[in-house]
Amino acid sequence: MKKKVAVFRKEHFNAAHRLHNAEWSDEINAKVFGKCNNPNYHGHNYNLDVKLVGEIDPKTGYVIDMKVLSDIIKEHVLDVFDHKNLNLDVPHFKELNPTAENIVVVIHELLEKAINKPELELTVRLYETERNYVEYPA
Amino acid sequence: MKKKVAVFRKEHFNAAHRLHNAEWSDEINAKVFGKCNNPNYHGHNYNLDVKLVGEIDPKTGYVIDMKVLSDIIKEHVLDVFDHKNLNLDVPHFKELNPTAENIVVVIHELLEKAINKPELELTVRLYETERNYVEYPA
Amino acid sequence: MKKKVAVFRKEHFNAAHRLHNAEWSDEINAKVFGKCNNPNYHGHNYNLDVKLVGEIDPKTGYVIDMKVLSDIIKEHVLDVFDHKNLNLDVPHFKELNPTAENIVVVIHELLEKAINKPELELTVRLYETERNYVEYPA
Amino acid sequence: MKKKVAVFRKEHFNAAHRLHNAEWSDEINAKVFGKCNNPNYHGHNYNLDVKLVGEIDPKTGYVIDMKVLSDIIKEHVLDVFDHKNLNLDVPHFKELNPTAENIVVVIHELLEKAINKPELELTVRLYETERNYVEYPA
Amino acid sequence: MKKKVAVFRKEHFNAAHRLHNAEWSDEINAKVFGKCNNPNYHGHNYNLDVKLVGEIDPKTGYVIDMKVLSDIIKEHVLDVFDHKNLNLDVPHFKELNPTAENIVVVIHELLEKAINKPELELTVRLYETERNYVEYPA
Amino acid sequence: MKKKVAVFRKEHFNAAHRLHNAEWSDEINAKVFGKCNNPNYHGHNYNLDVKLVGEIDPKTGYVIDMKVLSDIIKEHVLDVFDHKNLNLDVPHFKELNPTAENIVVVIHELLEKAINKPELELTVRLYETERNYVEYPA
Repeated sequence: MKKKVAVFRKEHFNAAHRLHNAEWSDEINAKVFGKCNNPNYHGHNYNLDVKLVGEIDPKTGYVIDMKVLSDIIKEHVLDVFDHKNLNLDVPHFKELNPTAENIVVVIHELLEKAINKPELELTVRLYETERNYVEYPA
Repeated sequence: MKKKVAVFRKEHFNAAHRLHNAEWSDEINAKVFGKCNNPNYHGHNYNLDVKLVGEIDPKTGYVIDMKVLSDIIKEHVLDVFDHKNLNLDVPHFKELNPTAENIVVVIHELLEKAINKPELELTVRLYETERNYVEYPA
Repeated sequence: MKKKVAVFRKEHFNAAHRLHNAEWSDEINAKVFGKCNNPNYHGHNYNLDVKLVGEIDPKTGYVIDMKVLSDIIKEHVLDVFDHKNLNLDVPHFKELNPTAENIVVVIHELLEKAINKPELELTVRLYETERNYVEYPA
Repeated sequence: MKKKVAVFRKEHFNAAHRLHNAEWSDEINAKVFGKCNNPNYHGHNYNLDVKLVGEIDPKTGYVIDMKVLSDIIKEHVLDVFDHKNLNLDVPHFKELNPTAENIVVVIHELLEKAINKPELELTVRLYETERNYVEYPA
Repeated sequence: MKKKVAVFRKEHFNAAHRLHNAEWSDEINAKVFGKCNNPNYHGHNYNLDVKLVGEIDPKTGYVIDMKVLSDIIKEHVLDVFDHKNLNLDVPHFKELNPTAENIVVVIHELLEKAINKPELELTVRLYETERNYVEYPA
Repeated sequence: MKKKVAVFRKEHFNAAHRLHNAEWSDEINAKVFGKCNNPNYHGHNYNLDVKLVGEIDPKTGYVIDMKVLSDIIKEHVLDVFDHKNLNLDVPHFKELNPTAENIVVVIHELLEKAINKPELELTVRLYETERNYVEYPA
């Protein structure tokens, strides 16, 4: 069996969002989401760790060219999320609440399709703040 | 002459903002501020370093009680800025563009009045991202 | 099968401790634990990463409300460990040597009982210094 | 079944390297490896996280004495890699391209032999920069 | 006039301490110093930034050899403070309250004498936690 | 008098170098520079903090547009230093020893000329490692 190595690339984007469930009253939203429910939005510097597991290509010594991976992340995630309002500007969150958990699942879907290499196992970690972060799949 | 020591306290808040000059056309705003001009806002995790210079109190060994300083920052800055939209929710930026430079000057004014100890010299550093930060006074 | 996401919350506490095995002579303790055996204690800023794996609640978009998790960590770990002498003030280490390995297992037990959600898988990472850290379960 | 804990030790070294495949022409090397192919070399501050999983020794409270682990890493990795040119000074890369992926596998082999405790499971993470890192085994 | 450059060296030590003024009652100490007054001590990972300002030696290109500076810090600060109880083990704090402010002034005195180069201007910064730090002289 | 604010921009580059004084024998070079004298070079991830002090432009709220500053640093420093061998590839170090002190003075000269705004006061900090860094002017 060939040796598998994990490679990681860290990227970041800045975005506004609010947490809100349209099926609930304003009172319930305020109670459940607290200050994250502010109708005027707040924001974060999101840090993103993209992990790919695969075999080393003996010719290059790479699992994947980090420049290629970085360009894919830029085109398919950063250009969509950076300096945006997640609720208003990013179609995936028109009806989906942009919690860190939901954002990381959406980013995983976008990257899996864009990388398009089933032989590489993808995991995404998203830091909403330095103290709150999420990972998918777990 | 007594010995002067600087003490620093780091705090943070999360906020949305956009950069915009109401006296300019949308075209000029878009050209000058780029993606920071997004009308739907974007956001940041702001880190704040508050520095006070003064003499050590021989009884306590403190320049200032850090718990007191932290409480002042919380009441006069974090409760005003955290999880807010700087343009819409913070009165100081109704007409002032919330660039990092303008925010750090406003925070300095708020803290100087709240601390109210002219014998302590105050400096504020504000990190808008890990790579862009400002300090006042310089 | 539903999608599982990991959520992480970082907390910290400051404590004193010494490493010591009461069944050994002072000579053996000094030899095995070196300067960590100082009878007058030394101390650390401990950083704690609490990880929970579970399904996203479709109503909230949360695996768990981070505010709730943070409050549980505060009540059941920080209030017990912070600004304490682990050997003298924390009952779990009356007879158990407070190595990072033993501390992380104790914190895991405390949190598992306090969170009390068997459907969420708990992992705890403890940083004793920036260069020495442990995780349980492995 | 006994409880297994992971212990981690962070170390670092500074080295020069270039990426190059001797079987390819200069043109292909320049195209594939870009500025990393500079024949005069460039360099990095490499950070190394060494992880060992095992049971806690009930007498010491340790999985392994971190001082012993640190000494092994120093003798078998740092003394070989630190302030060296990986291509010219480190025998393992005479014919193997010193990509982060290949370096982490070599370090894993060196450490597994030096630690020589089959009951401890070893994983090595290597940071080439703050934004590019690798881990083996994945 | 010759060009002056600042050089910085970061070191760290781990220590226990408590804050206490022997001239006050236990009640006043508890009120003023809160949980930092715990009679059984607590502790910190202290980070130390030593700054020296001087002219570049045209032969070496150094203001000072960082290896020499690091050895001086090790002998005159780390060997005295690391893995110690500041109140009980470090003579300077037999009667002086080991607040961060007082510690940084003591370290400055120790280093100024040990470096013994009046042409180099010395500043010391001490991090008690990631969020509380001090600098002397200010 | 108008208010002066400092703005900072962090950038980084990776480079190889060796420390060597061509006027000295190999023995003296080895003795003075130790492992930094390795004739095959070693390398670093250099982090760069560029600081500019000036007045806030009331129209933009900027001291300087950070995008403009970042582009200047990229063109005049990163494109010259990144993924290079400082001794062989960067003309400024043909005869000047590439110590951190000398590098930071060279970068200051390059940036001062490129920015070309005498009303803005420039300071450059260069991190050679996380624990060794320099600043000019001091």
